[in-house]
Amino acid sequence: MQDTKIIQFASDNYVGAHPDIAAILMTSLESIEIPYGSDTYSKLAKEEFQKQFKQDCEVFFVGTGTAANVVALKSILRSYEGVICSDIAHINTAEGGALENFIGAKIFTAPSHASDGKLTLSSLKQVFQNFRNIHFNKPRAVSITQSTELGTVYTCEEIKEICDFAHANGLIVHMDGARIANAAAYLKKTFKEMVVDTGVDILSFGATKNGAIMAEAIVVFNKDLIKDMLYIQKQSMQLFSKMRFIPAQFIPYFKNNLWLKNAANANEKAYYIAEELKSTKLYKILNKVETNQIFIELPINLKDDLAKNYLFYITQENFEKNICSIRIITSYNTSEADAQKLISDFKQAEYNFLLSQSF
Amino acid sequence: MQDTKIIQFASDNYVGAHPDIAAILMTSLESIEIPYGSDTYSKLAKEEFQKQFKQDCEVFFVGTGTAANVVALKSILRSYEGVICSDIAHINTAEGGALENFIGAKIFTAPSHASDGKLTLSSLKQVFQNFRNIHFNKPRAVSITQSTELGTVYTCEEIKEICDFAHANGLIVHMDGARIANAAAYLKKTFKEMVVDTGVDILSFGATKNGAIMAEAIVVFNKDLIKDMLYIQKQSMQLFSKMRFIPAQFIPYFKNNLWLKNAANANEKAYYIAEELKSTKLYKILNKVETNQIFIELPINLKDDLAKNYLFYITQENFEKNICSIRIITSYNTSEADAQKLISDFKQAEYNFLLSQSF
Amino acid sequence: MQDTKIIQFASDNYVGAHPDIAAILMTSLESIEIPYGSDTYSKLAKEEFQKQFKQDCEVFFVGTGTAANVVALKSILRSYEGVICSDIAHINTAEGGALENFIGAKIFTAPSHASDGKLTLSSLKQVFQNFRNIHFNKPRAVSITQSTELGTVYTCEEIKEICDFAHANGLIVHMDGARIANAAAYLKKTFKEMVVDTGVDILSFGATKNGAIMAEAIVVFNKDLIKDMLYIQKQSMQLFSKMRFIPAQFIPYFKNNLWLKNAANANEKAYYIAEELKSTKLYKILNKVETNQIFIELPINLKDDLAKNYLFYITQENFEKNICSIRIITSYNTSEADAQKLISDFKQAEYNFLLSQSF
Amino acid sequence: MQDTKIIQFASDNYVGAHPDIAAILMTSLESIEIPYGSDTYSKLAKEEFQKQFKQDCEVFFVGTGTAANVVALKSILRSYEGVICSDIAHINTAEGGALENFIGAKIFTAPSHASDGKLTLSSLKQVFQNFRNIHFNKPRAVSITQSTELGTVYTCEEIKEICDFAHANGLIVHMDGARIANAAAYLKKTFKEMVVDTGVDILSFGATKNGAIMAEAIVVFNKDLIKDMLYIQKQSMQLFSKMRFIPAQFIPYFKNNLWLKNAANANEKAYYIAEELKSTKLYKILNKVETNQIFIELPINLKDDLAKNYLFYITQENFEKNICSIRIITSYNTSEADAQKLISDFKQAEYNFLLSQSF
Repeated sequence: MQDTKIIQFASDNYVGAHPDIAAILMTSLESIEIPYGSDTYSKLAKEEFQKQFKQDCEVFFVGTGTAANVVALKSILRSYEGVICSDIAHINTAEGGALENFIGAKIFTAPSHASDGKLTLSSLKQVFQNFRNIHFNKPRAVSITQSTELGTVYTCEEIKEICDFAHANGLIVHMDGARIANAAAYLKKTFKEMVVDTGVDILSFGATKNGAIMAEAIVVFNKDLIKDMLYIQKQSMQLFSKMRFIPAQFIPYFKNNLWLKNAANANEKAYYIAEELKSTKLYKILNKVETNQIFIELPINLKDDLAKNYLFYITQENFEKNICSIRIITSYNTSEADAQKLISDFKQAEYNFLLSQSF
Repeated sequence: MQDTKIIQFASDNYVGAHPDIAAILMTSLESIEIPYGSDTYSKLAKEEFQKQFKQDCEVFFVGTGTAANVVALKSILRSYEGVICSDIAHINTAEGGALENFIGAKIFTAPSHASDGKLTLSSLKQVFQNFRNIHFNKPRAVSITQSTELGTVYTCEEIKEICDFAHANGLIVHMDGARIANAAAYLKKTFKEMVVDTGVDILSFGATKNGAIMAEAIVVFNKDLIKDMLYIQKQSMQLFSKMRFIPAQFIPYFKNNLWLKNAANANEKAYYIAEELKSTKLYKILNKVETNQIFIELPINLKDDLAKNYLFYITQENFEKNICSIRIITSYNTSEADAQKLISDFKQAEYNFLLSQSF
Repeated sequence: MQDTKIIQFASDNYVGAHPDIAAILMTSLESIEIPYGSDTYSKLAKEEFQKQFKQDCEVFFVGTGTAANVVALKSILRSYEGVICSDIAHINTAEGGALENFIGAKIFTAPSHASDGKLTLSSLKQVFQNFRNIHFNKPRAVSITQSTELGTVYTCEEIKEICDFAHANGLIVHMDGARIANAAAYLKKTFKEMVVDTGVDILSFGATKNGAIMAEAIVVFNKDLIKDMLYIQKQSMQLFSKMRFIPAQFIPYFKNNLWLKNAANANEKAYYIAEELKSTKLYKILNKVETNQIFIELPINLKDDLAKNYLFYITQENFEKNICSIRIITSYNTSEADAQKLISDFKQAEYNFLLSQSF
Repeated sequence: MQDTKIIQFASDNYVGAHPDIAAILMTSLESIEIPYGSDTYSKLAKEEFQKQFKQDCEVFFVGTGTAANVVALKSILRSYEGVICSDIAHINTAEGGALENFIGAKIFTAPSHASDGKLTLSSLKQVFQNFRNIHFNKPRAVSITQSTELGTVYTCEEIKEICDFAHANGLIVHMDGARIANAAAYLKKTFKEMVVDTGVDILSFGATKNGAIMAEAIVVFNKDLIKDMLYIQKQSMQLFSKMRFIPAQFIPYFKNNLWLKNAANANEKAYYIAEELKSTKLYKILNKVETNQIFIELPINLKDDLAKNYLFYITQENFEKNICSIRIITSYNTSEADAQKLISDFKQAEYNFLLSQSF
């Protein structure tokens, strides 16, 4: 990026890779390895996953979060079946319709609250009841995002409740964990407690947004879903020949809890920013800031001023009320200084704005 | 890989990345970049492609050769259309049925000669004539692989003939260039001469097998195919967030003709091996060795002996005749010493085998 | 059906075919006809459509309303595109996910009012604004149902407004006319006024629910959509060999305004029933009864009594409030006597229910 | 069709319906029936099928042979799997690519002999061996056409051999019985002997080409394939609301062996024609005439003369050798007189042609 004066809080995928991850990547590029996932790194990384989750889970490595979700769900769904999820789920709103095209199945959306974006047990039940006849797709899976698209976190109890209902009704549970480390850091739970003990069947485990690069894994706990996964991975154009590149990253990621350090840093910087902005007059925090995402409502004109020095996403604009919403995301390497500067600049901008309005 | 005594000639995707490519990868991991292809490296790499090919070509970066082919063909084909190719084309035999599932279209195969695997103009015409009614898919594209799955190379004249016929009949031409550098090195032609001047509409440009890692590009010359490509790339799960990683590799790849040096080395080692084995009694070279692939017929029992020290693919086994075929592939970094050792060991094995037979 | 004492108001597809339609079917079964749509009846029926709609429209005959919708929309949509419709649209809720599987595209739903189920111009605009980036399907079509799934009817002005916005924004307009005759009868408009003059691009024209059998047509006004339609029809398994059977029915259907007589009868019986039930205490009409569908809220226990003698659909049950909703549909041959009997029986049941409650 | 002087031998789908079938159709149009396959006729027809085949088979009614094949195969195949069949199988060459688009799976073709078009056990084994790795679709089904696209018939022993190999290797067997009655008539076997006792798992049972109209059934013997069939039927746009129309036809079709009388008549007329033409100089019968299809090679110029009075398909033209191939198909109602006239006219044309050549 040219203009280095601009500080980015747009997303956690603007930054590169953590040095420990970059280092092993280099090493991995030197050796001769069997292609298509039979390499040394795939084996080692799988063992790391099994330490974190469960001895007998199976692991498949893919290049994007969308791919992880779609490949995982394709191991569950036939085209005449469907998956129930929150209406703001990434699979429903930001994956280019890959699920529909690649699986042919239907996404059943349940309305979610604007403050947390979660699938609730009651809305899950409602959707499940509504679609039970042969004139429509058969509900077959539930997908929840942890942490959610609004940065909020399902408690282990909430996850377990959903899994219990799902299993009692013949549904398989998928978790989209594109930002799962941030959720675990918030809950102060192990991956095993949060995912295995609650009953999740299959998990998209993301590392890209937490200091890795093109590194996502599908972790399968339900044995029925493993059998054909390699065929699905191949057909979905995610069976990389020089695969070693992806699994290699997970080795330092799990060693020394790099995943936790990275996620905790991102979360803490977000808490700090949110806490400081709460005391202002014009910045209204819209979501519960549990991980590294902050959604802020503010006057539209104020936004333009901020945009001169900061990169962030605009998530809504209301020209009648002259307000808009923006999304601030912190990253694994967001520094104390960056956070402080943002707080200070945002407050200054507010002051200027109020001053200009007072005339 | 554990057993380092085994020398691999199994494929050009067992090796890692060339040091120049590894170096820029490292650099690319440090900076802040706009995700999803709007990064600095994508811009720079595109310029390199435009220098090599044509000022106004458009370039999209994906992670596998299968993805390059399928995304490229999806920009051409509707589900009720089809693509004509050689029966041994990679899209027909080694891509997990991705084309059928992701595009829904049909592959029309034309029989090819066992020695070169090419789509000939006459077989193309034959297939095109055979399928022209509404009871079947409509032929809409032609796909040729350069160099082919048997390591042979279409001449520029052959490519042009196919393009001319295709365009005269409403067909779009796709080239699968997973090993395109090896073809250019053999023909001693520029990419422009081989691809643009012959009339190819869209190209899968592979670098992974020639010293890069997960680095494939779709180069589009036909403007009609550009419009929706980003949507297709996203839907096909190939729009990586930290995209910079792929385009970065193409910068050193084109600079200083690294692509040519790598491909020429692989080709020359293959020529050398083929030349030496031609003078033997038991190794029969099946294909024209124009690039880095050698297909060899030999006694089945002899194969087992070789397999103790060499990795290669077995492409056919005939237990009645007691013969089999193997594939030897050289790589960008196959050394003179490796080639010599293979020749010497193969000859020794032949000698031992003949000796054992003489009793 | 065994129990002839039960009177059906469950749907307009329980009844058979009108005698005039049955008669031509018989005749059509006797002759030798070129298969796959090149028969005499297809030609004649097409001319009837052109008289009703527009000289240069093109017509394709299919066997179900779902097929008409999906084939029509497949002529518009690529898999990475999407269609905007009301959340209760038949294509979204009752077609077995055929669109997603067969086209691979996305359905964008706009929330509709419970009383009319329509797509409004403002909700269309809202959805269109929300989905305009490459991370999601590209809005490409709008689909409206006339008459709607709630039996209500878009005015010609409403249709034109939607078409105008759509065309100004690169969207193609599809109309699902599974019950289009009922809408025309209500509006007292010709098909041309309602569909052609308003700007609809492509129409699913249903006759099955109005006295025909397996008789649906796709009427195409936008020439761009015609070119590949036969391929799409064939691929969608809707190009019947003995096609004559479907188009034959449309000849008497349009002759002597059979379509209008049938639809008007169904509508009038529904108006009559709705009018009579409005004056009751317990039956609450939920929708605007503009065509042949009546949605009624009533006490759950009362429903069980009615179900002994009448077939109808239960559309909702609320066990907390002890109320439910049912759907009553009249048909092309619903008699005055049937309607009167239903009214009388429903009133008697209400009386009994009130009596039982008063103790 | 306008020109009634032209006699059609083009296909068995040019004729209408047998009077017994037409009669029950009329009756079926009068009653009130539960839609979507819960009608009286579906129940009765299913019982007829169970008498013919096996007590516990399940039956689903669809509108075209393509639909029967695709729906049947969709109950077997996931998108990453494939079906092995003869290269001239209807599913591979004449179904508009419906299988690829609707199922997403791959068709593996085995080369067949030009005289019978059959899948042989050895070619099945060959294809099965060739495709057994994760880089390609997984073979999961075998499909054979009885009678074949060339009018030939698998013996019960041949079918059993294929089923035995299939089942021993985890493959499911589908039979495309678009012209199954003609095969049974030739073999003088019951449907049970030919299909159930040989081990076929699922059958497309066609009646359309043998005196019915839009009447095809999927008969399922393998219980694993039944579970989701209604969902598949609905999603494939083949769950007709006024379904009664299709099953009704099978009642007279099985009663009094109408199926056998119709098929036997078509076969016998074909045998007669083939026998008579064998003794000519210029007409060369290319296939074994076991059912109602005759493939004839003849001089191209002679064909033009015949085409003035007869409708038939031209299956090949060789302008270098001045020969072509045509297909003659007899129907359930082809009369002795029609057959005699064809023979006589063909012989006369031959005589004229020879005469013209002798100058």
